Amino acid sequence: MIENFSHVTINCRDLDRSVAFYESIGLQVLKRIGELNSEANARAFRLPAGRLKVVHLGPKEPSENMRIDLVEWLDPQPTGEAYPTLNNIGLARLCFRVSNIQETVNHLKEKGIIFFSEPQLLGQGVTTVCFNDPDGTTLQLIEGLREFVNR
Amino acid sequence: MIENFSHVTINCRDLDRSVAFYESIGLQVLKRIGELNSEANARAFRLPAGRLKVVHLGPKEPSENMRIDLVEWLDPQPTGEAYPTLNNIGLARLCFRVSNIQETVNHLKEKGIIFFSEPQLLGQGVTTVCFNDPDGTTLQLIEGLREFVNR
Repeated sequence: MIENFSHVTINCRDLDRSVAFYESIGLQVLKRIGELNSEANARAFRLPAGRLKVVHLGPKEPSENMRIDLVEWLDPQPTGEAYPTLNNIGLARLCFRVSNIQETVNHLKEKGIIFFSEPQLLGQGVTTVCFNDPDGTTLQLIEGLREFVNR
Repeated sequence: MIENFSHVTINCRDLDRSVAFYESIGLQVLKRIGELNSEANARAFRLPAGRLKVVHLGPKEPSENMRIDLVEWLDPQPTGEAYPTLNNIGLARLCFRVSNIQETVNHLKEKGIIFFSEPQLLGQGVTTVCFNDPDGTTLQLIEGLREFVNR
């Protein structure tokens, strides 16, 4: 049965560009898997071929229970666009915990990141803000929500 | 700066149906947040309104570092469809660790879940399989990949 999370996959058009972006927002490369190519990939992902490049990303203190697999598809090539709005059906946004959201936003604005809004207080001390990665995938920062601490 | 993961948001069309589905695959409800409605939501998510229902989901041993926010948008209503293929740009799939993938697949098949393929051996003892949630969001199971254990 399911033990825990393993990873979430983010497909990008340019792996080097996206790795630089995710490093700039404070994640680290856990492992550069490089190029994979197998019929097993094609079957598992129900695609006509299975050639892709992968980099594993995580926070500064990674655990086995969650990482990002940043993927650039080579064959078949990447297709489509990220969901245009946050009420689209599907995996809509990936959210990271920050200790000081305003400080983080100020820091990331200096790096050229454009946010959907100023940080918004949602109530009960929870503040959040959204932005896009280079391919339009929506990321989110949240401060003040720490409910499930190793209970 | 970013401390760790917080959550990934999965938008669905019918919260009750999706909660039942995610419970059936072995996740648990951490908290039923109920209905939220605020202009701050609308601003944060860059939508014309901000009314939604939320349930927090996690594995059997939840941590503060990752959960699922299962969301049904009420205003605006959910739109669009999940990505049609796994090489689409964006948040493509959410993957869970399992200790025995074949046993898990057999168990979930009995519950009516249809998989993309039989479990596929990707090499180095890693086996994986994909399936969809009720709205077509792609989930994945993986056995054998435990690289970043509290290092």
